[in-house]
Amino acid sequence: MTGTVASPARLSKQLDDGLAAVERAMLDVTNSRVEVLRAASQHILSAGGKRIRPRLLLLTYLALGGDDVARVARPAAAIELMHTASVVHDDINDHGILRRGRPSVNAIWGRTFALLTGDFLFTAVYELMAPYQQLNVDLARAATALVEGETLQASAVKNNTFTREVYMDIIALKTAALFRAAAVIGAKMTGVGENEANELGEFGFNLGLAFQITDDILDIVADEESLGKTSGIDVHQGRGVAVALHAGNGNGSTQVIDPVEAIKRKMMEGDSIEKARAQAALLVDSAVARLSALPDSPAKQALADLALVVIQRET
Amino acid sequence: MTGTVASPARLSKQLDDGLAAVERAMLDVTNSRVEVLRAASQHILSAGGKRIRPRLLLLTYLALGGDDVARVARPAAAIELMHTASVVHDDINDHGILRRGRPSVNAIWGRTFALLTGDFLFTAVYELMAPYQQLNVDLARAATALVEGETLQASAVKNNTFTREVYMDIIALKTAALFRAAAVIGAKMTGVGENEANELGEFGFNLGLAFQITDDILDIVADEESLGKTSGIDVHQGRGVAVALHAGNGNGSTQVIDPVEAIKRKMMEGDSIEKARAQAALLVDSAVARLSALPDSPAKQALADLALVVIQRET
Repeated sequence: MTGTVASPARLSKQLDDGLAAVERAMLDVTNSRVEVLRAASQHILSAGGKRIRPRLLLLTYLALGGDDVARVARPAAAIELMHTASVVHDDINDHGILRRGRPSVNAIWGRTFALLTGDFLFTAVYELMAPYQQLNVDLARAATALVEGETLQASAVKNNTFTREVYMDIIALKTAALFRAAAVIGAKMTGVGENEANELGEFGFNLGLAFQITDDILDIVADEESLGKTSGIDVHQGRGVAVALHAGNGNGSTQVIDPVEAIKRKMMEGDSIEKARAQAALLVDSAVARLSALPDSPAKQALADLALVVIQRET
Repeated sequence: MTGTVASPARLSKQLDDGLAAVERAMLDVTNSRVEVLRAASQHILSAGGKRIRPRLLLLTYLALGGDDVARVARPAAAIELMHTASVVHDDINDHGILRRGRPSVNAIWGRTFALLTGDFLFTAVYELMAPYQQLNVDLARAATALVEGETLQASAVKNNTFTREVYMDIIALKTAALFRAAAVIGAKMTGVGENEANELGEFGFNLGLAFQITDDILDIVADEESLGKTSGIDVHQGRGVAVALHAGNGNGSTQVIDPVEAIKRKMMEGDSIEKARAQAALLVDSAVARLSALPDSPAKQALADLALVVIQRET
C-alpha cells in the first residue's frame, strides 16, 4: 500500500495522534482491578520516556504509505510495554532507585510488587498482541532476545567475560532486536512483503545498536540529575561502552577484564567515548542507507531525523 | 468434530504420546543459546511435576473427539510453561528453596537469574502461542489473571486483609483461570462452538479451585520431605485454606486477622481442614456435572478421574 504523500504538518498530526493512541492503549490494558498493579504501572508509564520504539513503529508504517495510525497503536503500545516491563525488572536486579526522574517501582513498592508489576506488563503485551498472528511471531522472538540479552549481560558480569564481542552481542539482543521488531511490525501492517519489511527491520536494528551505545555513553558521562535514573549503575554492571570498544580489541579474543576497572582505566585514557560516538554514528549511517529505496516523504525524512536524534540526544 | 470412540488402551497411548510431545515442546522452546537460561529452565522442567494443566487440555481435546494430540502439544506446553514461570518467580518472592524435591532456581542460580529465567519462560509461552489467534486471547487473559492473583495475595498479606472472600478471589485468579484456559483451548481445538468450550471451561475452572484448596491443605499438613517444596512458606504467606474457610465466616465482612496466627488458631480448633476438603469435594462435583453433555468415552471418564485425583492426592 502506498498512500498519498503527506505534508509535514499532516505527518506531525498523524504522529501525535498515533502516540496519543499508544498512551491510551497502554493505560487501558494496565487498568487492572488490582490496585498495586494499576498504580505501579501508571506510575512508570506517566513518567514519560522517549517513546522511541512506538515512534519507530509509527513512522515506519507512515513511511511505507500506511495512513490509519489507530490501527497500529496496539502493537506500538505492546512494544513500549515490553520495554517498560524489562525496565521494571532491571531496576530490581540493579537496585535502581531512580527511573525517568522518579523513584523506581522497586523503590516505592518493593521487590515483590516490582517483580509482579514487570510480569503484569509482560502479560499486558501478550493481551495487546493476542489478536495478531504473524506479528506475534516477530514480537515473541524479540521478547526472548530481550531476556536473553539481559541474562547474557548478567552472566558476563558475574563470570567476568565482558569483551567487545560480548557487549555487541548483548546490545543486539537486549535492545536492537526490539527496535527491529518495531520497524518490521510497522512495515508489515502496511501490507508490504517480507523483503521490504526486513530492510526496514535492518534500519531498526542498526538504530537500536546506536541507541544503546549512546545510552551507555550517557550513562558514563551524565550526572544523575540530568539523566533521571541512578547513574553509575550501568557502569557498575559493566555495561560501559568503553569496555565495548576496547576489551579484546575487536579480535574476539579471550581477554577478560574487570568491567568496572576497565571502564575507569579507559575513561582516563581519554578517547574511548569519542570512539563509541563514532561507532554509533557509523551505525546510524548504515541504518539510514536502508531507507534509500523508500519514496521521499515527510515520514521517511522523520525516520532519518529520528536516527540522528538517537545519537545526538543528551539524555 | 466427533471422532471415533477410543478404547481405554488407545486413550492411554494418546495421552502418553501427547504428554511426551508436550515435554519435547517445552525443552525445545527453552533451548536457549544463553547457558544459564537453558540450564535453569531444564532444571525446573526435568524435576517433573504433575503436568495436570497439559493433561486437562489433552483430555478435554480427546473427550470432544479430537484425535491428533500432536496438534495440541504446543498450547499444552505453553500452559505448563506459564505455570512454571510463575513458580520460579514465586520462589523468589517467597524465598522458596525447595521445589519439586530439588533446590529451587532461586536457590541455585540466585535472584537475578531466577527473575530472568521466569521472564524467559514467559517469553517462551509467547513464542509457542504466536501462531494462534483466538487461543492467544484466551491464554493472555489467564496470564494476566495469574499475575493479578499473585499480586492480590501479596497485597492481602501485606495489608492484612485476608478474608475468605479474598482467598477465593485469589485462587480464582492465580490458579483456576489457567485451568479454565487449558480446558477452553483443548475444546476449541476440536472445532466446537463457544458454548461447549465455555462449559468445559467451567469444568476446568472449578477443578482449578479444588486443586488450589487441596494444595493449600497439603501445604499445611504435609511434611517438607513428602511435598518436595519448602513447606510452611505458603502458610506463612497466609494462603492457608483455614483462613479461607473461617476468616470473615463467609459474610464478606471486613474482619481482618493475621493470617499466620489465624491458621494456627484454627488448626487447633480442629475441623477447618475437614471443611476445606468438603468444599473441594463440592467443587469437584460441580465440575464433573459439566461433563454430563459429553458423549461417554474413555477420555470423558479420564476427565472425571482427573477431578477425583486432584482432591485425593497426597502430594
